Amino acid sequence: MSKKLVLAYSGGLDTSYCAVHLSKDLGYEVHAVSVNTGGFTSEEISTIESNAYKMGVSTYKNLDAVASYYNKVIKYLIYGNVLKNNTYPLSVSAERIIQAIEIVEYAKSIDAQYIAHGSTGAGNDQVRFDMIFQTLAPHIEIITPIRDLKLSRQEEIDYLKKNGVDMSWEKAKYSVNKGLWGTSVGGEETLTSEKSLPEHAYPSQLTKEGEEKVTLTFKNGQFTALNGNSDAPEKNIEALNKIASAYAIGRDIHVGDTIVGIKGRVGFEAAAALITIKAHHLLEKHTLTKWQLQHKEYLSSFYGMHLHEGQYLDPVMRNIEAFLESSQKNVSGDVIVTLKPYHFMLDGISSDHDLMNAKFGSYGELNKGWTADEAKGFIKIVGNQNKIYHQVNSES
Amino acid sequence: MSKKLVLAYSGGLDTSYCAVHLSKDLGYEVHAVSVNTGGFTSEEISTIESNAYKMGVSTYKNLDAVASYYNKVIKYLIYGNVLKNNTYPLSVSAERIIQAIEIVEYAKSIDAQYIAHGSTGAGNDQVRFDMIFQTLAPHIEIITPIRDLKLSRQEEIDYLKKNGVDMSWEKAKYSVNKGLWGTSVGGEETLTSEKSLPEHAYPSQLTKEGEEKVTLTFKNGQFTALNGNSDAPEKNIEALNKIASAYAIGRDIHVGDTIVGIKGRVGFEAAAALITIKAHHLLEKHTLTKWQLQHKEYLSSFYGMHLHEGQYLDPVMRNIEAFLESSQKNVSGDVIVTLKPYHFMLDGISSDHDLMNAKFGSYGELNKGWTADEAKGFIKIVGNQNKIYHQVNSES
Amino acid sequence: MSKKLVLAYSGGLDTSYCAVHLSKDLGYEVHAVSVNTGGFTSEEISTIESNAYKMGVSTYKNLDAVASYYNKVIKYLIYGNVLKNNTYPLSVSAERIIQAIEIVEYAKSIDAQYIAHGSTGAGNDQVRFDMIFQTLAPHIEIITPIRDLKLSRQEEIDYLKKNGVDMSWEKAKYSVNKGLWGTSVGGEETLTSEKSLPEHAYPSQLTKEGEEKVTLTFKNGQFTALNGNSDAPEKNIEALNKIASAYAIGRDIHVGDTIVGIKGRVGFEAAAALITIKAHHLLEKHTLTKWQLQHKEYLSSFYGMHLHEGQYLDPVMRNIEAFLESSQKNVSGDVIVTLKPYHFMLDGISSDHDLMNAKFGSYGELNKGWTADEAKGFIKIVGNQNKIYHQVNSES
Amino acid sequence: MSKKLVLAYSGGLDTSYCAVHLSKDLGYEVHAVSVNTGGFTSEEISTIESNAYKMGVSTYKNLDAVASYYNKVIKYLIYGNVLKNNTYPLSVSAERIIQAIEIVEYAKSIDAQYIAHGSTGAGNDQVRFDMIFQTLAPHIEIITPIRDLKLSRQEEIDYLKKNGVDMSWEKAKYSVNKGLWGTSVGGEETLTSEKSLPEHAYPSQLTKEGEEKVTLTFKNGQFTALNGNSDAPEKNIEALNKIASAYAIGRDIHVGDTIVGIKGRVGFEAAAALITIKAHHLLEKHTLTKWQLQHKEYLSSFYGMHLHEGQYLDPVMRNIEAFLESSQKNVSGDVIVTLKPYHFMLDGISSDHDLMNAKFGSYGELNKGWTADEAKGFIKIVGNQNKIYHQVNSES
Repeated sequence: MSKKLVLAYSGGLDTSYCAVHLSKDLGYEVHAVSVNTGGFTSEEISTIESNAYKMGVSTYKNLDAVASYYNKVIKYLIYGNVLKNNTYPLSVSAERIIQAIEIVEYAKSIDAQYIAHGSTGAGNDQVRFDMIFQTLAPHIEIITPIRDLKLSRQEEIDYLKKNGVDMSWEKAKYSVNKGLWGTSVGGEETLTSEKSLPEHAYPSQLTKEGEEKVTLTFKNGQFTALNGNSDAPEKNIEALNKIASAYAIGRDIHVGDTIVGIKGRVGFEAAAALITIKAHHLLEKHTLTKWQLQHKEYLSSFYGMHLHEGQYLDPVMRNIEAFLESSQKNVSGDVIVTLKPYHFMLDGISSDHDLMNAKFGSYGELNKGWTADEAKGFIKIVGNQNKIYHQVNSES
Repeated sequence: MSKKLVLAYSGGLDTSYCAVHLSKDLGYEVHAVSVNTGGFTSEEISTIESNAYKMGVSTYKNLDAVASYYNKVIKYLIYGNVLKNNTYPLSVSAERIIQAIEIVEYAKSIDAQYIAHGSTGAGNDQVRFDMIFQTLAPHIEIITPIRDLKLSRQEEIDYLKKNGVDMSWEKAKYSVNKGLWGTSVGGEETLTSEKSLPEHAYPSQLTKEGEEKVTLTFKNGQFTALNGNSDAPEKNIEALNKIASAYAIGRDIHVGDTIVGIKGRVGFEAAAALITIKAHHLLEKHTLTKWQLQHKEYLSSFYGMHLHEGQYLDPVMRNIEAFLESSQKNVSGDVIVTLKPYHFMLDGISSDHDLMNAKFGSYGELNKGWTADEAKGFIKIVGNQNKIYHQVNSES
Repeated sequence: MSKKLVLAYSGGLDTSYCAVHLSKDLGYEVHAVSVNTGGFTSEEISTIESNAYKMGVSTYKNLDAVASYYNKVIKYLIYGNVLKNNTYPLSVSAERIIQAIEIVEYAKSIDAQYIAHGSTGAGNDQVRFDMIFQTLAPHIEIITPIRDLKLSRQEEIDYLKKNGVDMSWEKAKYSVNKGLWGTSVGGEETLTSEKSLPEHAYPSQLTKEGEEKVTLTFKNGQFTALNGNSDAPEKNIEALNKIASAYAIGRDIHVGDTIVGIKGRVGFEAAAALITIKAHHLLEKHTLTKWQLQHKEYLSSFYGMHLHEGQYLDPVMRNIEAFLESSQKNVSGDVIVTLKPYHFMLDGISSDHDLMNAKFGSYGELNKGWTADEAKGFIKIVGNQNKIYHQVNSES
Repeated sequence: MSKKLVLAYSGGLDTSYCAVHLSKDLGYEVHAVSVNTGGFTSEEISTIESNAYKMGVSTYKNLDAVASYYNKVIKYLIYGNVLKNNTYPLSVSAERIIQAIEIVEYAKSIDAQYIAHGSTGAGNDQVRFDMIFQTLAPHIEIITPIRDLKLSRQEEIDYLKKNGVDMSWEKAKYSVNKGLWGTSVGGEETLTSEKSLPEHAYPSQLTKEGEEKVTLTFKNGQFTALNGNSDAPEKNIEALNKIASAYAIGRDIHVGDTIVGIKGRVGFEAAAALITIKAHHLLEKHTLTKWQLQHKEYLSSFYGMHLHEGQYLDPVMRNIEAFLESSQKNVSGDVIVTLKPYHFMLDGISSDHDLMNAKFGSYGELNKGWTADEAKGFIKIVGNQNKIYHQVNSES
C-alpha cells in the first residue's frame, strides 16, 4: 500500500533533502507542494517545479494563496494596526499560518496519511506548522526529517550528490523570506544584539530620490484603491510595495520572544505593510471614538501575540476578528502619504466619517458648543473623585 | 484686605491681558509666575520678567521645573514607552501637569487665595489646570478671565493699549509651545484633516547631512549618559535634542481625542523624546520577559490616557508608576542609534542583562538546549486545547 | 403653536409634579409615557394611567419594553457575565438606558420638541437620560424641573394640592425600583457604609424551605428553556425569578462609583440575574477556551463600565457586542442549579460542546494523550524564558 | 560518592514508593522533606516522619512554610482579590509554588544533586514543581519516578510490601488536599461535568445554626485582626477558617483550564479565603478610586493566571506585586461579615479612608457640591463625542 505524503516544499536545501530522503529511502509517495504567499514569480515557480521532480516527487503543485492570505490574516492585521512589539508586521508568522492551512487542506483533499515539513527543532515555524496540522488533521502523521536528524548543511549536500542531485547549494550571506506582507532578512549581524544590517543586505535598494505622494483609499477598513485605481486589496498592497520599495522604505529590525522562550532578532523590509498600517491607523484616529481606539489596542496586541505563537485556530481569534470587523464600519476615506528616501510621512486624510470635520458643524462652531460655565461644571464633576480622595486622605 | 492672586503667566497676549485686568480692574495683588519646563532661555525669562512688571504685577517669579518635570512625569513616560495613539510623546499634556503642580505649590507657599490662568474654555489645558488646582488646593478660588470673557485678540490688544501697554502683539503664523519633551506646532493646516505642516513651520530646520551615530546609556530605565558622558537624564535629553534636531528628526502630526470630546490635531517635533523612547523600548525587548512587555503595554497606554486627561493625581497613577519602576530593574545597557536627515535607525544594544546573549550560554548553545522530541512534546501539549476544541466542535 | 413635550412619567411624586407644572404653569402639551422594563403589573399601569390624566397630561402611553430590554442589553450582560464590581447585575443602569431609548424614539415618532424627565442633579440617572436624548435627538430640548428647581418633598406636595391633586404621597421607608433584571432597594442604611439592609426591606421574602433543583438551558448563550420548557429568554428570566425569589436568593449590596465621581451604595435583590449569569458562566468554563475566557473578562468589565456610565451609544459597545455574540457559538447546554434558602449552588452542566468530555476521547484517554517525556519537553521549553532570565540576572 | 537527593515527601502511596525505590533500588541518599502550608497538625507530621524512616530515607524534615506562604503568595492574592474564573482561590496552585520554593532552597542548602517529586505526567503539579526547580537550580537534576514509570496503585502497594513496607494504603473515596488557603476535594463526581459533590465529601461539616457576626480588620490591605484580636495575618486566616467552617461556608466547584490544555474540575472548601477576599474587596470599593479598581482587575486576573500556570518566577509577577502593594496604601478599616449556614453576607465597613464618608463633608453635602447647571455642563461635554459620532454618521 502506498504511503501518501504531502511535503511542504520550498526548493531549498532542507526540503530538497526531505524530498529525496522521503521518497527514496523511506518509500513515501511524495506530493510536493509550495504555497505562494506573494513571494514567488512564475519563473521561480517553474524552477521549483522542475527541481522537485529531480528530487523524485510523484507530483508537484504550487498553491496560489495570495488572496487567501489577505482575507484570512492580513485584513485583520490591518484592521488591528498590528505591529509586534510596535515594530514588526508579523510577515513570517502570518505566512506560515496560511501555508500550513493550505497544505493541510491539500493533504486532506488528496487523502494523504502524512505531512512532512523541513523546519528545524529550534524555532517558531515548527510550532506553527505542527499546531495547524495536528488541529485540522489529527489523523495525519507529521514527519520532520530536518528536526529529527539534525544534519549539517554539508551532510545534506553530500547526501543529495550521492543520490544524483548535483546542484549548487551555495549559502546566501543573508537568508531572505519574501511574501506579500514583507520580506525578512537574517544574517550574521542579526545573531548579535549590537549590529544592524548593512545597506546591501536588503533586497530592495534605494533607486529613487526626491519625494512622491500616494493616496490610499480605504473602505470599511479595507485598502480598496491606490492613487485612485481600485483593485483587490492584495493587489493594492503589491502595487504600493513596488512604488515604496524604490525609496527603501520600511526597513527595521525586529527583536522579540520566540515561542520556545528565547529572544530572536530578524531584519525586515515591509514598505507596503508599514505604510498601509500607519495610514489606516491615522484614518481610524479621525473616525473612531476614544474607546474604540483604546479597546482595539488591547485586542490587537493579543491578536498579534496569539498569531505569532501559532494559535490562529483558537476560537478567540474569530471573536477578536468579529470585534475588529465591527469596528471598521466607518473607517472609509483617503489617506495621503509622502514617500521619501528611507521614510514616509502621513500628510492627512479626508473622510465622510471624519469626527473632526463634522457634517453638522465646523470645528469652530463645535468649539462654541458649550459655554465657560458648562466647561467649569464639567471639570468640577470630572474632578470630584480625585478631590474627595485627596481630602479624605489628607494628601494635599 | 489684599486679595492675593497667583497668575500663571507666559508673557503672551492672553496672560498679559489677565495681569492688567486682574490688578487694575479687579484689584487683585497679582503674583505672576512662569514655569520653565525646558522651553525658556534665560534671556526669554528676563524679557518675560520685565514685561510682567509693565502689566502691573506685584511680583514675578520664574520657577525652574526641568528636573521636577523629568522626575515626576517624563521618567515614567520613558519607562512606559508612552506615545499617545502610537505617535505623540504627550509633551504638552505632561508640561501642563507640572506647571499646574508648581503653580499651586507656589500659591500655597505664599498663602494666595486665588489662582488665575489664561486658558480658554475650548481645550484641554483648562481641564489640566483646574483639576490639579481644585484637588491640591480646594480652598483656593480659580479665576479664568479668558475663558469667561471670550474677548477677541483685537479687543485684548485695544484694552492693553488703553491701559498703557503698547507692545507689538503680532500673531505668529504658527503657535509654538516648547519644552523639554517636545515642541508643539499649530497652524491653519492643523485645523484641517488633510494638510501637513510646511517645512518652515517647524522651529528646527535641517542643518546637517550625512549620518551620525549616538549612544544612549540607560541604567534601570533612566537615560544616564549620552555618547559616554554621564549627566542627569534631563540634561542628556536636552543634549540629544540639540544633536538630533539638526537632522530635523522627530516631526509628526498628532491626531487625538481632547478631554472635551472633540478630535484635535497638532504638529510637533520631539527628536529627543522619540529617540529616547524607541531606544529604551529596544533595550527592554532584550531585557524584559514577554509578559513584562505585554502588561507594560496595557498599563502604559492607560498611563498616557489618564495623564493626557489631567488625571495625574488619581492614586492609580502612583500604582502604575510602582509597576513601571519595578519593571526597570534590569533595563540597563547601551543603545546605538544612527541619525539621518528626517529619521533615525536603531542599530542595536549591548547589555549585561540581555536575554538574547546569555552569560551562561551563547544563542547557539541555547538552541541546543532541547531535543527534537522535547520540541514535539512541547508543541503537542501547547496545542492540546485547540485540538480538543476542534474535535469536539467538528470544525476540522 | 403647541409646545409638544414628552414626559418620562412614573406616577411618583416628582414626575407628578412635573406633569402638572409643565402643563399648567408652562403651557406644554404634555404626553406622558412610562416604560415597562418588567417592573409593572397591568393593574399598576392602569393606576398610573388614570393618575396621569388627573395631572393634566394630554395623552398617556405605556411602552412595553421587556423584549427590547432583553435583546438590546440583558442578552449581552449575560454573554459577558457582567457583574459590576463583581457583585451587581447593573439592573438600574441597564433599565435607564432602555427607558431613555424608548422615550426618545416615542418623542421622535410624535414630533415632540421637548423631552422632560424627573431626575435630580445629584445622581446617575440624569446622565443616562440626557446622554441618550442629546445623542439620538440633538434637536429636542431637554427639560428637567426637578433638577432645576430643587424643591423639597413637602413643597411638591403642597404645590400639587394647590393644583387640585390631593393624593396620599407617603414616603416609603425603602425606595424600590423593580425590573426584569433586578430590584434595587435604598434606605437609610444604604446611606451609611456600615449597615446592611434589614430582612424586611427586601420585597421578596423567604417563603420556601428545603431545596429545589432547576435546569437552565442555553442555546448560543441565550437562556432558551427553564426546566425543559422553552420560551423567550425574557420569559424564562421572569419565571426563574419567581421560583428563586421564594428562597430569598440574590440579595446583596452594591458599592460603586457614580458617574459624578462620588461613591454610592444600594441594596438589591436579583435572583434570576445572578443565577442566570453564574449558570451561563459555568457553561462557558466548559465550552470556551482559556483565551476566550480571558479576553471576554477584559471586554465585559469595560462593557459594564461604559453601560453604567451611560455610554451605551458609543460605537465601541456594538464592537464589544460583536465579540460577545461571536464567542457564544458553542455556549449551548444544560446547567443544573440547586436553590436553597438565601443561596444557590451550581451542580454541573451537560453540553455537546463540553471540552471536558470530548466526543472523540474520554478524559482518561486524553490524559494518556502524551507521554512523560513529552510532558518534560513541554515543561522544559515553557520554562525557557524564566530559566534564562534568572541565569542572566544571577537571581537564582 | 553519595548521590544526595531531596524528595518532596507527603507520606502518601506515591511518595512512599519513591522513597523506597530511590533509596533501595537506585542507591540515592534520600532526604525526605515535607512542607507545611497550613494543612498538617503536629501529630500528622510525627506520623509522616516515622513512616519516612520506615521507607529508608536518610533524613526527614518538615519545613514550616505557613508564614512564608502568606508573605510570598497569599498576601498578593488578597490584594488582588484573586479568584480564578471568579470562583477558585487558587489554593492548590499557590501551595505548590511555595512547596517547590522551600524544597529547592532546602536542596541547595544541603548541596543535593537531585530533587525528586511524585507528580504524575498528567496534571498541573509537575509543571509547577519542574518550573521552579529548573529555574532556581538549573544544576540540580529532577527525578520523577511516578511520571516515568506509570505504575498502578496495586503495583506500588505490591512493591512496598515486597520491600517490607506493609501499611494500609486504602484509597480514600475523596482525595483531599488541605492548606491555609483552602482544601481541595476530588472524587468520582468531579471527573464528570454534571455532578456536584455530596455533602459528606467535604471535610468540614455544618455544626452550627443561626448566625454570627465577625469583624475583619485590614491595615494596608493586610488582615491584621479578627474580632478585635490582632495577630499575624496567617493566624487570623486560620482562626477565621475555624469559625466559618462550622457554618460549612465557602464550598464550590472549580472548573478551569489546566496548564496542559485540558479542562479540569475540582471541589473545594475555602471559608476563610472567600470571606477574606470578599471583605477585602468591599473595603477597596470604599477606599480606592474607580481606575484603581479597574486596573487592579486586569492585573490581578493575569497574576492568577500566571501563578496557576507555574510562572511565579517570571519577573512580571514582582512588577504586579509592586502595583498591588502600592494600591493598598489606604485599604485600612473594619469589615463586618455575617456568617450563616452555607453562606455569608457582607454587612458593611468602616474606614478613615472611606471615600463615601468624606471627612470634609457628608454625603448630603457633597451632593450639594455642584449645581444643576454644572451637572448639565458635565453631561453635555461628557456626551460630546457620541453626539458628534452619531451626527456625522447619521445614525440618529
